[in-house]
Amino acid sequence: MTNDVLGFTAGVASAGVKDGTPRRTDVALIASDRDCAAAGVFTTNEVIAAPCVVTRRHLERGSLRGIVVNSGNANACTGEEGERSAVAMAKAAADKIGCDPHEIAVASTGVIGVPLPIDRIGAAVSGMVLRAGEWNEVAQAIMTTDTKPKNIGMDVKLAAGTVHIRGIAKGAGMIHPNMATMLAFVMTDAEVATDELQEMLEDAADASFNLISIDGDTSTNDTLLLLANGASGIELRGEDLKEFGGALRGLCEVLAREILADGEGVTKVFEVRVSGAASAEDARRAARTITTSNLVKTAIHGADPNWGRILAAAGRSGAKVDQTKASVRIADVSVFADGTPRAFDSDVVRRVFEKKDITIGVDLGVGSESARAWGTDLSAEYVRINAEYTT
Amino acid sequence: MTNDVLGFTAGVASAGVKDGTPRRTDVALIASDRDCAAAGVFTTNEVIAAPCVVTRRHLERGSLRGIVVNSGNANACTGEEGERSAVAMAKAAADKIGCDPHEIAVASTGVIGVPLPIDRIGAAVSGMVLRAGEWNEVAQAIMTTDTKPKNIGMDVKLAAGTVHIRGIAKGAGMIHPNMATMLAFVMTDAEVATDELQEMLEDAADASFNLISIDGDTSTNDTLLLLANGASGIELRGEDLKEFGGALRGLCEVLAREILADGEGVTKVFEVRVSGAASAEDARRAARTITTSNLVKTAIHGADPNWGRILAAAGRSGAKVDQTKASVRIADVSVFADGTPRAFDSDVVRRVFEKKDITIGVDLGVGSESARAWGTDLSAEYVRINAEYTT
Repeated sequence: MTNDVLGFTAGVASAGVKDGTPRRTDVALIASDRDCAAAGVFTTNEVIAAPCVVTRRHLERGSLRGIVVNSGNANACTGEEGERSAVAMAKAAADKIGCDPHEIAVASTGVIGVPLPIDRIGAAVSGMVLRAGEWNEVAQAIMTTDTKPKNIGMDVKLAAGTVHIRGIAKGAGMIHPNMATMLAFVMTDAEVATDELQEMLEDAADASFNLISIDGDTSTNDTLLLLANGASGIELRGEDLKEFGGALRGLCEVLAREILADGEGVTKVFEVRVSGAASAEDARRAARTITTSNLVKTAIHGADPNWGRILAAAGRSGAKVDQTKASVRIADVSVFADGTPRAFDSDVVRRVFEKKDITIGVDLGVGSESARAWGTDLSAEYVRINAEYTT
Repeated sequence: MTNDVLGFTAGVASAGVKDGTPRRTDVALIASDRDCAAAGVFTTNEVIAAPCVVTRRHLERGSLRGIVVNSGNANACTGEEGERSAVAMAKAAADKIGCDPHEIAVASTGVIGVPLPIDRIGAAVSGMVLRAGEWNEVAQAIMTTDTKPKNIGMDVKLAAGTVHIRGIAKGAGMIHPNMATMLAFVMTDAEVATDELQEMLEDAADASFNLISIDGDTSTNDTLLLLANGASGIELRGEDLKEFGGALRGLCEVLAREILADGEGVTKVFEVRVSGAASAEDARRAARTITTSNLVKTAIHGADPNWGRILAAAGRSGAKVDQTKASVRIADVSVFADGTPRAFDSDVVRRVFEKKDITIGVDLGVGSESARAWGTDLSAEYVRINAEYTT
């Protein structure tokens, strides 16, 4: 049984963000009863949403007390009015929990380019009831086309005692994080210095959210936040700090995989392991390109043992490939080795591709660097969902 | 009425390349009755098919007499045996028309990683009957999932007299040329020096094939060849050379657009015009990224006026974007200007997106460079075609 992170409460409300009709919860507030050291990573998209701009600014000023978030509207490409709305969201949350607006992080997810109904959101926040343990409610309130809430708790037993971590995330579409996923919030009652917190968060993001792709489209709103309020009374130092970092990475990996498996129209996920690359950057580029290739994604969807598409995607990724030495493995089956196709039983590969979780290995035949990336199949259902999103 | 290119003949045959059963024509030979100055551009994929390797080598040695091509098998990722097969294809064609094997260009298209049935192809070539005017038959023989042959003739009236150009192409899938399209062959009876021919061909490819994308996947076999045999007796110089270059560019643009419109599962095509970019490279990168975004492609498929996805794609392309000055136009409708969403009638945008041919304008708000790119929608039919390709 996981104990909850100490000193945090949360609340949710229905503001009818998307079309004025409150059908489901779409606003959430996470609050700490004391100042939190805070770290964040954000989208690398040149078009960055107002809440990301405002939150980055607040993080630079110092500690945080809470996170306010809405689904149904991304508050992106909304001009100066959008930034005023993000600031007003922070103000509403600060009034609710009794702190300075600069101590609030703001996040939004949903359709781009539509003004945020800030009055309805402000009213919803002020009417909220904040309680301990409302994590599943928060995870539900931030969903868009997600089908399942993503909410994980973890106890981390350290030399100095036990601390708790709680992670909440949402994904589903426009998922090709280049810093963080769409939205993920991690809370802990450990006490950690801000610069160590930021470093741990960036490491964890690189080993988790930054490896996944559902559709190759990096969002304008990607936000990953980590708040540490120290309510456990346990300060992280030395080995404990390393152990906590490992637990954080594990939690982020689980959240990233949950986002992947619950992606729009996704029926299968696959891991690509690239080896034999000339550089780490080449390895990552090849792995990411394979996971975003529509031809690879549709072959996996159709359980088609068409491995040539995998090698072709590596070849166009910009990474060096020596096709006379390259190899491709699908699960345990070698289909191409030392630049030559291997005779293989296509029914065996088909059975591998019919599984829900597939591993593909590609050796570029050039050097000794490696990387992993995680992708999803491309289904007709994905097309259906995204041809009707705003309508 | 277009007169045919002088001095060229062609033939086709059924070799049962794909599965041993000759159901349709799948081998073609284009022959010139005299030496041709020749130019070519090839895939930039690091994984390059054997026929491209062999043809590039033959082009370096000098003039050509013909092109031999098969569909149903790409002869890519086939190891050393693949290169021997490509050389054997050139030998069969050279024997047929009575020239040196080095004077033959070889091209293949189809599934990757399967050994080429070179004996059947060789027998098919040696049994061919070569005739004038067989262009539509050639265009049919090189089709894979294309639904229509792509074959255009053009008369170019110059000061020195009239010359003829003939262009044949195929596309359909794995179409994101980064040098040329899948396969396109252009023949002319004008007399042109090799270096001028190469320069004209590269210019034409950049303004046509290199602007289109069906699925973002650059093929291992992209080949664009231009053969000039001089049979018209007209040598191109000065203004005539420029005029011929313009005609060539026009012909390549028509072929590229035909490839796009006949892409796998394509129901609509769209042109992206990027302006206000910091550099020409930025403009091109933004335009290409928008045409390959699955979220943009599905929005257009569903006639969903979700313009935020267009700007988000530009923002992740790597190009500089000033979102406080950027603008987006869909056909004649301004939906986002100077960093602010415009009130617009979404039914009007929906009606634009319901057309078969759509124009999108994006101003990045940074500089003064511009570029164009052409893309297609993403349909459930695309997924169906590519989930079953080899099976």
